[in-house]
Amino acid sequence: MSRTQRFSNKPLDVIGIGNAIVDILVQTDETFLNAHSLKKGSMTLVNESQAERLYLQCGPGLETSGGSAANTLHGVAQLGRKAGFIGRVKNDQLGRIFSHDIRSVGALFDTPPSQDGPPTARCLILVTQDAQRTMCTYLGASVDLEPKDLDLSRVKEAKILYLEGYLWDSPPAQRAFIKAAETSRNAGGQIALSLSDSFCVDRHRDSFLKLLDHHVDILFANEAEILSLYQSDNLNNAINKVRNICQVAAITCGEKGSVVIEGEKTWEIPSYKLGELIDTTGAGDLYAGGFLYGYTSGESLQNCGKMGSICAGQVVTQLGPRCQVSLPQILQKHLG
Amino acid sequence: MSRTQRFSNKPLDVIGIGNAIVDILVQTDETFLNAHSLKKGSMTLVNESQAERLYLQCGPGLETSGGSAANTLHGVAQLGRKAGFIGRVKNDQLGRIFSHDIRSVGALFDTPPSQDGPPTARCLILVTQDAQRTMCTYLGASVDLEPKDLDLSRVKEAKILYLEGYLWDSPPAQRAFIKAAETSRNAGGQIALSLSDSFCVDRHRDSFLKLLDHHVDILFANEAEILSLYQSDNLNNAINKVRNICQVAAITCGEKGSVVIEGEKTWEIPSYKLGELIDTTGAGDLYAGGFLYGYTSGESLQNCGKMGSICAGQVVTQLGPRCQVSLPQILQKHLG
Repeated sequence: MSRTQRFSNKPLDVIGIGNAIVDILVQTDETFLNAHSLKKGSMTLVNESQAERLYLQCGPGLETSGGSAANTLHGVAQLGRKAGFIGRVKNDQLGRIFSHDIRSVGALFDTPPSQDGPPTARCLILVTQDAQRTMCTYLGASVDLEPKDLDLSRVKEAKILYLEGYLWDSPPAQRAFIKAAETSRNAGGQIALSLSDSFCVDRHRDSFLKLLDHHVDILFANEAEILSLYQSDNLNNAINKVRNICQVAAITCGEKGSVVIEGEKTWEIPSYKLGELIDTTGAGDLYAGGFLYGYTSGESLQNCGKMGSICAGQVVTQLGPRCQVSLPQILQKHLG
Repeated sequence: MSRTQRFSNKPLDVIGIGNAIVDILVQTDETFLNAHSLKKGSMTLVNESQAERLYLQCGPGLETSGGSAANTLHGVAQLGRKAGFIGRVKNDQLGRIFSHDIRSVGALFDTPPSQDGPPTARCLILVTQDAQRTMCTYLGASVDLEPKDLDLSRVKEAKILYLEGYLWDSPPAQRAFIKAAETSRNAGGQIALSLSDSFCVDRHRDSFLKLLDHHVDILFANEAEILSLYQSDNLNNAINKVRNICQVAAITCGEKGSVVIEGEKTWEIPSYKLGELIDTTGAGDLYAGGFLYGYTSGESLQNCGKMGSICAGQVVTQLGPRCQVSLPQILQKHLG
């Protein structure tokens, strides 16, 4: 049965669950990272007072809606697919910005905002001259996502349930994660997971391995994440281990491109250089967005990989993780 | 007496008074502007519910601190001059973003935020494909600036008091404006005014003409604003009228460059094309910032004009009105 047939009765293409975050993008240098013991390229969780202290010391910012899965779903919606997002903001100014932005591209987002408690999550993204991003996330209201917040009818309606690994940092979100995965599976959907960050994998390796085994059909990871998952230093070995676990996996390797696998089959996908490299924030998220657009459109896995690669190639030519140009036009131009 | 001698006892280079605004930059098209009867290139004042309605209907945004005078002072501070800003935010998330950003480049900003009443001002900036910006401003907390909020010791300490014409839309801010101008004058400072917007000039023509006559030493205006001020359709005539009123004037004419005048002297300054034109937001503000940097450094008026022109040329190559690259480096590179 083709993907198109399998999913024919599903009105929603992709539903994502993730942390609902507003990003604060700040251009900085290595000295600042070192002074605050931040490892370049990583994501560090900080509490509210640490977040305030860092913010106080850094330069002027540019604010934009972010959140890994939310960026992916935003991309899927921009590409014209039916997308939905589940995540928790607070009823505050940043929460209203987040809600506006994801809805404004046509994605469904109706998780009720919290009325009290911590503010909407924010992530300080420190962008260095080499276009690398180093993130400090204050999870705020987003960790209050619980199983009861899930709109399970939406999960059932979706071809793909997309989950970000970062959710695993919050126990109630973990439970929501599992419940959504089971619901999707029982309704005939497929489950996609992004490993998010090699340090996140390190924190939750055993759980992630179990999760992959029991729940995940489509895996997105970068080189560092997949190596961390299997505690390996050999990319091919790590990739071969996933072959037996997930139906499909897409492993991104920055400017070297990506590798898509399905069973014994392998496709090597080039990276696309679409302009000057400015900021790698959102590259992995938009790869997943482009890939899932192709996947839910019934494209070959090779084309899915190319679509992901083009979307990632576009987002790194600008500041921030949400594409500021028309993604359908970009795809059309570069797919040939 | 040279400018340097005149100002030798003043520890602050420029203090600005203006609306403290967070911008929401949204890329859009002519259809959206027409559907909402918005005149391209203009600034329209909207109330909170109009602002909400417009926001609901437009695409995803990028948030950045803005405000005309604040953008200018941010530029002056980025260039290493001692700058201060007076304006009103609320004690809310957008207010904290505004306050952080202007302080983070070293500008002094300590107007107490309001604790209740309307939220921090925001400006929806609709950027069209031709890089023009059309603004809808909800003034929120910023109109609550009153004479009693002025830190007059700061005004006295500054070589230049910089005022934005937009302030004239609020009667208490007008009073603060006049009081600051008188204080600066009595303390031996000079007063600079930006006319802000041709529609703003149209609303307040008579007051502005009086203001120029009684208070303003340095005038910044664009072509449309100076023509509106003198209800003329001849730029040379309009410029000649200013010669007798203000000591110095700088009239910007977009890509045609600018004209700087002092008495009977005239300097024609070219525009600088430093990259692809993306968004004209902040072009006039950064022209004034570069100019005042030169002016308070004792540069010739021709060099002041060039510095303004270079800063404006840089800011239009990016989204938003605050330069995301090092302005001192840009000046050094292009001044030759």
